[in-house]
Parts: sequence; C-alpha cells; structure tokens
Amino acid sequence: MTEAVSRPTLEAVAARAGVSRATVSRVVNGGDGVREPLAERVRRAVEELGYVPNQAARSLVTRRHDAVAVVIAEPETKVFADPFFALQLRGISKELTAHDNQLVLLLTEGRADHVRVARYLAGGHVDGALVFSLHLDDPLPGLIQDAGVPTVFGGRPGWGEDTPAADPGVAYVDCDNRGGARAAVRHLLDLGRRRIAHITGPLDQTSAADRLDGYRDVMADVLGESDPRLVVESDFTPAGGERAMRELLDRCPDVDAVFAANDLTALGALRVLRESGRRVPDDVAVVGFDDMVPVTEQAEPPLTTVRQDIEEMGRLMARLLLQGLSDGRHRPRTLPGAPAVPGSPGTAVILPTTLIRRASA
Amino acid sequence: MTEAVSRPTLEAVAARAGVSRATVSRVVNGGDGVREPLAERVRRAVEELGYVPNQAARSLVTRRHDAVAVVIAEPETKVFADPFFALQLRGISKELTAHDNQLVLLLTEGRADHVRVARYLAGGHVDGALVFSLHLDDPLPGLIQDAGVPTVFGGRPGWGEDTPAADPGVAYVDCDNRGGARAAVRHLLDLGRRRIAHITGPLDQTSAADRLDGYRDVMADVLGESDPRLVVESDFTPAGGERAMRELLDRCPDVDAVFAANDLTALGALRVLRESGRRVPDDVAVVGFDDMVPVTEQAEPPLTTVRQDIEEMGRLMARLLLQGLSDGRHRPRTLPGAPAVPGSPGTAVILPTTLIRRASA
Repeated sequence: MTEAVSRPTLEAVAARAGVSRATVSRVVNGGDGVREPLAERVRRAVEELGYVPNQAARSLVTRRHDAVAVVIAEPETKVFADPFFALQLRGISKELTAHDNQLVLLLTEGRADHVRVARYLAGGHVDGALVFSLHLDDPLPGLIQDAGVPTVFGGRPGWGEDTPAADPGVAYVDCDNRGGARAAVRHLLDLGRRRIAHITGPLDQTSAADRLDGYRDVMADVLGESDPRLVVESDFTPAGGERAMRELLDRCPDVDAVFAANDLTALGALRVLRESGRRVPDDVAVVGFDDMVPVTEQAEPPLTTVRQDIEEMGRLMARLLLQGLSDGRHRPRTLPGAPAVPGSPGTAVILPTTLIRRASA
Repeated sequence: MTEAVSRPTLEAVAARAGVSRATVSRVVNGGDGVREPLAERVRRAVEELGYVPNQAARSLVTRRHDAVAVVIAEPETKVFADPFFALQLRGISKELTAHDNQLVLLLTEGRADHVRVARYLAGGHVDGALVFSLHLDDPLPGLIQDAGVPTVFGGRPGWGEDTPAADPGVAYVDCDNRGGARAAVRHLLDLGRRRIAHITGPLDQTSAADRLDGYRDVMADVLGESDPRLVVESDFTPAGGERAMRELLDRCPDVDAVFAANDLTALGALRVLRESGRRVPDDVAVVGFDDMVPVTEQAEPPLTTVRQDIEEMGRLMARLLLQGLSDGRHRPRTLPGAPAVPGSPGTAVILPTTLIRRASA
C-alpha cells in the first residue's frame, strides 16, 4: 500500500442518507421502527459507500453473529466425493442466505480435528451449528454440547444412551429410513424375489442401522427367519459396494436381489454384477436409497431407489435452527431443566420417503 | 437436559497433571518454556478430560483464532460441481490441519452475498483469508481490504489498476497460465495443425485472459495474424464447451485442432465432436488445461492437457498466509507505507506447468 484507504463510517452513511447515526444503526442492525422510505435511503447509502458494519459492535447490540456453522463429521475428501453432502449444503445455503446468515463450513481431515472444531464453536464465532454424519463413538456431540452452541443434527443422533448427548431435548431432521427400507424390500418380494441380500452402510450410523432394521422387519415378517449370510456390512461408497457384492456372490451365488443402503453402494454392486455376467434385473434385481439424480438415472440400468429429499432436509435443519434462535428457544444446553416444548431443541422432523421405480428392479 | 453438565476447567487439568495453572495455560496456548515431560503430562490430561480451552480468553493472550477463512467467489453449486475447488481445498486443508488451524469455508449463493462475507471477515473470527475465483468487477477484494484481514489470493488478481486493490503488495499463488497455453498451442502446431481454435474461459478472470494471451502469442509468432473466428469465449464448464464447439464447427468447419481453456470445457468439446462424426485426434486434435485426473484419463479419447498442480497451489496459499501471520509480516492493509519486502504480502508464487500427452492430441 502506498496510501491509507479510509473505510466508510456510520457517520458517512448517515450524512449520505440525510438521517441520524441512530437511524443508520437501527437499519443496519435489522431493527424495526424505521419507516420504509427512510430505511430504503439508508440501505442505498450503505450500498453506494460500500459500508461494512463493525461486526464486533453490532454483536454487542444484537448478541448475534448472523452466522451458522456446518460441521460434517467426515474427512473433507469424503465431503467433496459424496454428492449427498453437496445436496444437503445446497438446502442449508439457500435457507441461510434467504435470512442473510453466513454459512460457515468447518472442514476437517479426520476425527482428530474434532476438538479443534469444538474450540472454534466455543469461541463465539457463530450463533449455532448444523451437524451431520455422526458416528456412534464420535466425541463431537459431547464437545459441541460443552461448547454451549445451539445445534440441530442431520440424522437421528444415536450415541450411547448413557452419555449426556443422549439428551431427549436434542433437535434433528431425518428421513424415514426404516420405512423406506421396508418399502424397498417389499417391492423386491412383490417381484417374486426370495434370496434378497442387503449391503448395509456403516452400522455405527443410525441411518444405516435403521435401514438394516427395515430390511429385517420385512424379511422376518414374510419369510420367517432370514439368512444372515445375505447381509454384508459396507460403507456407503461405490468401492465398498463392489467389495460387498463380490463377497455376496461368493457366499450366496443364488442371490436374486440386492437392497443397497445407498445409491453409491448400488452403483458398485451393479458394476460387479455386470462383470460377473449377471443380468440386472433378470438375474439379480437391485434397489438403492437416496435417489441421487442424475447418478440414478444414468446408471446401467437406471436404478430403482428409495427417494429422500436431501436438499429439503438441509433447508429444514437451517430453518429449525434459525427459528429456535429468533424465538430465543435455544438455551445454553447446560442449563438444568430446560423444557422440551414443541419446536424447541427437542424437535424431531422426519421426512417421508418414496420408492422410485426405474429399470433395475 | 435434566442435569447440568460441568465443563472441565483449567484447574481440573492442572490438578490431573499435577502442575500449576500457569503451566497448563502455557502448554494450551502453544507457548514455549515448558519441559517436554511436563508438557506431555498436560496434553494427556487435556485429552483425558476432554478440556476445551476458552477461545475468547486464549485469543486475548495470543491474538490468534487459529482459524483461516477460505472464500471462493462463486455460487456454492459451482464450488461443489467443479473438481478444481475440491483439489485446491484439499491442499489448503492439509496444510492448515498440519498447523492445527481450522479451515472456515464461507459459502455464498452469489455475488450479492459478498458484503455479508466481508462483514464476517471483518468480525474478527479468523486470522486471515484465502480468496479465489475472482472476477474483474467483483467488489469482494475491496471489501476484504477494508476488513483489514491478511489475505492470499489464488490466481493473479486482475481487477482494475486504479482501484485500491491493485496494490502491488498483494500476495498470490498462480500457475504459469500464459506459458502453459503457449506449450499447448506449440504442440498442436508441431502435429501439423494450422486451423487451431481456442475455447476460452470467462475473460473477466486472469487465468482465462492469460491463456488466451498465450494462444495468441504463438499463433501470431508462427502464422502471422490469426483468424479471430477461431476464438470463442466460454465459461470453464462442460455445457459451455459444448456450446462453443458447436459454434466453432458452424463458423469454421475446417478447424483441425482445439485448445480448450480447461479440461471441463475440453470434455464438452469432445462430446460435440463425437456427435458431429469428427474423429479425435485424426480430424480434430484437442488439448485441455489443468489435468483433472481421473477425468482426463477417462475421457474418450484420453485427454492431452496442460498440467498444473492444483492441490500444491492450495497448500502454498495456506503456507504463505501462515508464514506471514507467524512472522507478523501481515499488517493491516490500510496502514500507509507498509514495505513490500520479499515474502511479505507482496509475494507472488508462480508454479510451472507441464504438457501431458495422451491420445487426444
């Protein structure tokens, strides 16, 4: 720099708009009580001068940062490789932007970084957090609770019931994983399949555990006891789906259907079935979960799957958090005796699922 | 919550480790002067108790948040659709994590949100910012400069020379866009091609403008004046590459080579050439830019391209910023007369490029 660049002040905005400092302050801090023509003049002056409000002073008045953290408890490589997160972030981003809140995505390399994430959350840089992809033994929810940050979880948190985080007042948004899985398996039974396998997700995540439960519900109902060799644990990735499908063909060469715990896993299974010369759906029918368009439409053959509205889940998570913040319903989580009224942090929103029929089953 | 959960205190850590509060404080705040066996005992106690340091108090001592913002001046949909950003973030994430700094990714829906981003940066939530994908008329660099946040840019910032942000002291990391483009066009000339087209990126970005300059350099050198109809402006996306290739075939049916400004654009061009019945490389040779593996390897035919080390660029941006912060070389940008010493915010790091030959040219 060769010269000082002066930053436009509140005074400059007031002078430009021909109003008092107090009026500018009220408009900038989102307060009411300023008539619309005046408020509009202030907003125009703010824009023309490129005025940036002093956030620290502003926070003192509003006690808000207008920023919400998103924490995905997976390594950043997975965040960018799995379109699930992109969709969820799209919903979150739209909702936060509509309310002029900044989306602050905290990325990590792995679980060792979760203490640092909690430290950032505890540091007073955001008003709340949206947290997803938790695994059962992850210390993150406990750390976040200690940080005292209002939080909405994506997916039912399922950590041990004796930990503080098993708080019944926890707020989360999820889809009907168990019901969706039941619909998938019932559809395969209706097609006349009987040797129906299930490739699970990571079973330390409630979404994967719930889908397995749904599979077992229907298999037990219809067939009585089911063959445990038909269930292979996997990890929600295409490579994991390939490994699991190879193991299944090895164990149970008579398998005639596969319910994969998500679409990416189903893609891996389709690849191995093709390599092994099995026709889909003639020899083996395949159903996925998520309906990750366009991946499901472009699969060979196009994938029958259980649709959940991932973007809408993200949007609802953000909305639930912002509503709680503006109603003052989010209290520090360490306060004893906080009531679990409807819409409070004790809210669970469960979205329905739909079976989408394409060519694979 | 039915009961208060107490958060472990500095005192509890001191008691557990059998040291003084001051010793714990020094270890936690990364200070020196604590003997290793003692420091190790403190770290173990911190881990066992799940102690989260009070960030606000810590910041008062260190004046650091140990957090760095990443701002990508594109809508979040593009951030997740273009693998370029995932690669750059991978490099940034690795470097920041190695120094226990939190990566804070600020996502936006579009340019209208840049004032909010600047407000967050000005709010004292991060120690510095890494900013990329700037377009010429974007107000963001000016806003960031006003926010007084130490910044390293990804790609040479190219905004107007009369704006404050044209500061010669600006720090950035880039690849040799012009040199890489020259190598691509020279390669096509060496193959005997003469009707060499160029599909550009968005020309309000310096990377795209520099690649166009490199193309023109060589065409003018070798062929004298070049045919302006051979240059079509595009936008770094596959869909844009398709549109541009259709226009090119329309304008210049005798085109025998295409240098696309990035790999995604080249993919779109390959698709249209296939549809139109042209053989690659026999009828039309194609060269891309970036070397986005595995996309380039899996293209039909595999894509010849100009490789830049995108992950390394991200790593260097983070390293440059952290070095500047720890050396205290980053001063508030509004201070007059800050010297432009080597390694200071006036640093530019330009990485070399390499032509990677595959089947398409």
